[in-house]
Amino acid sequence: MNTLVTGAAGFLGANLLRSLLADPRGGHIVAVDLVPQSFPDASGRLRWITGGLDDPAGLAAVAATRFDTVFHLASIPGGLAEREPALGRRVNLDATLALFDRLAEAGTRPRVVFASSIAVYGEMAGDAVHALTPTRPTLTYGAHKRMAEIALADLTRRGGVSGIALRLPGLVARPGGSTGHGSAFMSDLLRSVAAGQPYVCPVGPEATCWWMSAACAVANLRHAAAIVATGDIQLPALHLSVGEVVAALAETFGPACGRLVTHRPSPEIERLFGRLPPLWAQEAEALGFAHDGSALRLVAAALAAD
Amino acid sequence: MNTLVTGAAGFLGANLLRSLLADPRGGHIVAVDLVPQSFPDASGRLRWITGGLDDPAGLAAVAATRFDTVFHLASIPGGLAEREPALGRRVNLDATLALFDRLAEAGTRPRVVFASSIAVYGEMAGDAVHALTPTRPTLTYGAHKRMAEIALADLTRRGGVSGIALRLPGLVARPGGSTGHGSAFMSDLLRSVAAGQPYVCPVGPEATCWWMSAACAVANLRHAAAIVATGDIQLPALHLSVGEVVAALAETFGPACGRLVTHRPSPEIERLFGRLPPLWAQEAEALGFAHDGSALRLVAAALAAD
Repeated sequence: MNTLVTGAAGFLGANLLRSLLADPRGGHIVAVDLVPQSFPDASGRLRWITGGLDDPAGLAAVAATRFDTVFHLASIPGGLAEREPALGRRVNLDATLALFDRLAEAGTRPRVVFASSIAVYGEMAGDAVHALTPTRPTLTYGAHKRMAEIALADLTRRGGVSGIALRLPGLVARPGGSTGHGSAFMSDLLRSVAAGQPYVCPVGPEATCWWMSAACAVANLRHAAAIVATGDIQLPALHLSVGEVVAALAETFGPACGRLVTHRPSPEIERLFGRLPPLWAQEAEALGFAHDGSALRLVAAALAAD
Repeated sequence: MNTLVTGAAGFLGANLLRSLLADPRGGHIVAVDLVPQSFPDASGRLRWITGGLDDPAGLAAVAATRFDTVFHLASIPGGLAEREPALGRRVNLDATLALFDRLAEAGTRPRVVFASSIAVYGEMAGDAVHALTPTRPTLTYGAHKRMAEIALADLTRRGGVSGIALRLPGLVARPGGSTGHGSAFMSDLLRSVAAGQPYVCPVGPEATCWWMSAACAVANLRHAAAIVATGDIQLPALHLSVGEVVAALAETFGPACGRLVTHRPSPEIERLFGRLPPLWAQEAEALGFAHDGSALRLVAAALAAD
């Protein structure tokens, strides 16, 4: 049993890797990332490849192993890809398609779990999102994610891989500092308040987002690897206002929390990340995917995960 | 005023080129195709480049001119791309994206009219197709067309080009002989009956297709170049059964025509090309796009066009 994790040093990748290494049934794991990393691994099951999939040598090193399961998480985040479109193109589209092609050519029909994004929808305002919501990406990042979904579905139809794409919302709580994710404020809010520090929020308290902890995302990724369903899946996520999340923080860390947060809304961030409509994800729930359960559980999971 | 036509030696390309050359306002035209061609051109306005866009030299030769308008028609047809996926990938995806990128980098923000296809929808059965119908391609050809639509829309959003993708149905009447198009029977039916020859039709008389003559498609392409709307457009098309088209042939060429056609349905061709649902294209009609008008006009336009 061989598993590949790309983008293994990233926020989601590192959480997934910890989960896989903690599971004795997990078999051998190849982790690849641009960032060298010595991961705690007493089991000897982990092999780390430092390199980029956009580099033929990096791709060849990865493709030398025959994998049963692949988690393809490596990507240039949306804000960064928008500023550096050639980099975004190389990693988010070209390297992703090249990886999928190599996996399909290997002849082992691996299970491929692709970390897609709600950025495929483009601006969402008003109508609830459901399984038939059209995809109209308004960032190059989302356009490339959608193109990769289509390529993965076609390779699945042709029989080369068994692919499933999970559309992930912004995950919390990422480490502080700019990560190139436009939705970083969601994590910054949680981390600042949990640390008792004031936070100036770039969206108002009534702004609505889709929330998911990294732990919940890892559970969904691993569930996706274990089932046979294929295609594009909109994961369930908690549809919560910023005010509801602040209330859950206050319930968790004490009423003083509410006073730490002030709002200075940025129209651009509000428009792109603060007007998310309700989400109907019954199909995904029927397949066994889940959200965090409640705002309180989200806060607990998001801040316990490191 | 410089216009580029790719795939200029193809069925649609040649019809478009004739139309552009017949229009004295048309300016200079660069035509590119793998097939060398000496097109009748008394005006000296046409330059023919023999080469493939999937060849860096061919692409560079094309990109040496600054274009105001681009008609990107070159593609490997669906049946052929399914049998030779590497060829389909190289032309229908890689070369198409490379062309779009070069056009966007030129700084002239050209109008790009991309010949997309109803293959983006995948199997259509039952529900009418409309502007929000999800795209679920079931051929690699359709997957690549959809990916190219997304890339073009993103380059348009970024300001590099002004792109519009027209989703074309099977066009009639293509010259006889295998062209790699699964919908070739539509053309073979028209040409055989018009020539007074018997025709064994691979779908039944109740099979429904979307029909458009090449002349109508050319008018729609040229209209697309002249307006400012961008995005993915499902063109209007006549939703007719094979029996209705045979009746129009009988009305045009005489009642004996009906006896020339026998039916030996192929389940595969019926499934992919003979169960097309009604088409609601009001948005496209409001933009000035049109179908042939009636079965009789379709027959006349399809068979007069050479």
